[in-house]
Amino acid sequence: MEIVVASHNPGKVAELKKLLEDLPVKIYSLDDFEVIPEVIEDGETFQENALKKARAVFAATGKITLADDSGLEVDALQGAPGVRSARFGGEGLTDHERNLKLLEMLEEVKDEERGATFQCCLAIVGPRNLEKVVNGACRGSIIRQPRGGSGFGYDPIFLPGEYGHTFAELSPEIKNKISHRGRALEKAALFLDGYIYSETHK
Amino acid sequence: MEIVVASHNPGKVAELKKLLEDLPVKIYSLDDFEVIPEVIEDGETFQENALKKARAVFAATGKITLADDSGLEVDALQGAPGVRSARFGGEGLTDHERNLKLLEMLEEVKDEERGATFQCCLAIVGPRNLEKVVNGACRGSIIRQPRGGSGFGYDPIFLPGEYGHTFAELSPEIKNKISHRGRALEKAALFLDGYIYSETHK
Repeated sequence: MEIVVASHNPGKVAELKKLLEDLPVKIYSLDDFEVIPEVIEDGETFQENALKKARAVFAATGKITLADDSGLEVDALQGAPGVRSARFGGEGLTDHERNLKLLEMLEEVKDEERGATFQCCLAIVGPRNLEKVVNGACRGSIIRQPRGGSGFGYDPIFLPGEYGHTFAELSPEIKNKISHRGRALEKAALFLDGYIYSETHK
Repeated sequence: MEIVVASHNPGKVAELKKLLEDLPVKIYSLDDFEVIPEVIEDGETFQENALKKARAVFAATGKITLADDSGLEVDALQGAPGVRSARFGGEGLTDHERNLKLLEMLEEVKDEERGATFQCCLAIVGPRNLEKVVNGACRGSIIRQPRGGSGFGYDPIFLPGEYGHTFAELSPEIKNKISHRGRALEKAALFLDGYIYSETHK
């Protein structure tokens, strides 16, 4: 059985390999294919973007495809940046500039009103009309200064509820356990586990 | 597709039906069969008991079987009653007597040392050597007086971490979302979802 993770990000691909390591499955990333369609992530929801990406990559490769869309929803900004997380503040910004921009907008917001939720939607698309969507969320708050060098995106300013460390201060192992993406990946792995069992035991 | 929930408990059967309601599957309980083997739950672990029960019911019915074993692990009692939760204090006790017995043993234990974990192990056993095990846990603490009339077993003395109410004071909907069994059932449903998709889309 073969599965494509619709990502060029080696971290995401490695995470999924780890979760599926007991299954008889070979994992590909987008780097393993020469021609992959460009997908514009302009959907109104995480689910729309994840499905759009997964459908396009499945159509191009013919292999079961797993695609995600993720974002940060800040309470005090009524859920923004949300589905626009990767483009928030302008296309050309670095992650660090984007974080400073967000912190600036939250300068006047009191500690107890700085709640936020990281959301992840994962879509699995495959043959015979297979389309399965799972979600994961991680609740936390936005601190006042970036902290930590791991991860990417908003990780340095997001403090998950259970820990005294930002996502960027946690080891990948711990982050994967509690993060929105880790939780969604765990669900996707369970679905694929059942699917693959049936496919490989006829 | 047909699945047997290895339980006579209508609450457990209803919970699973709810979780699988979007799937093309018919759910049976043990009450739907005339001859079911008696299974002695004398394993050393929740997993051993759950697998033993699921294997026996699958052997008797020929249908995919879902069986659970659950229990309460109290920190101050080094994980007891654990796998002996249903028989703790003696076979003939009512749930209420069992709760009073446990509270008595914890009388001298300070508030901050009354942590406990509800554990659930679910086994899925079916044709072609299918054996899948999933787990769910819910962390909380043991209060000093039973409270609430819903649920069963240790529910009236267990206060889950996220809520100010015991399991026996919560509505079934909320309890199912956060409980050890609800979490394990969600995982089992994802596995079965993938399995059934493959089985029914040839």
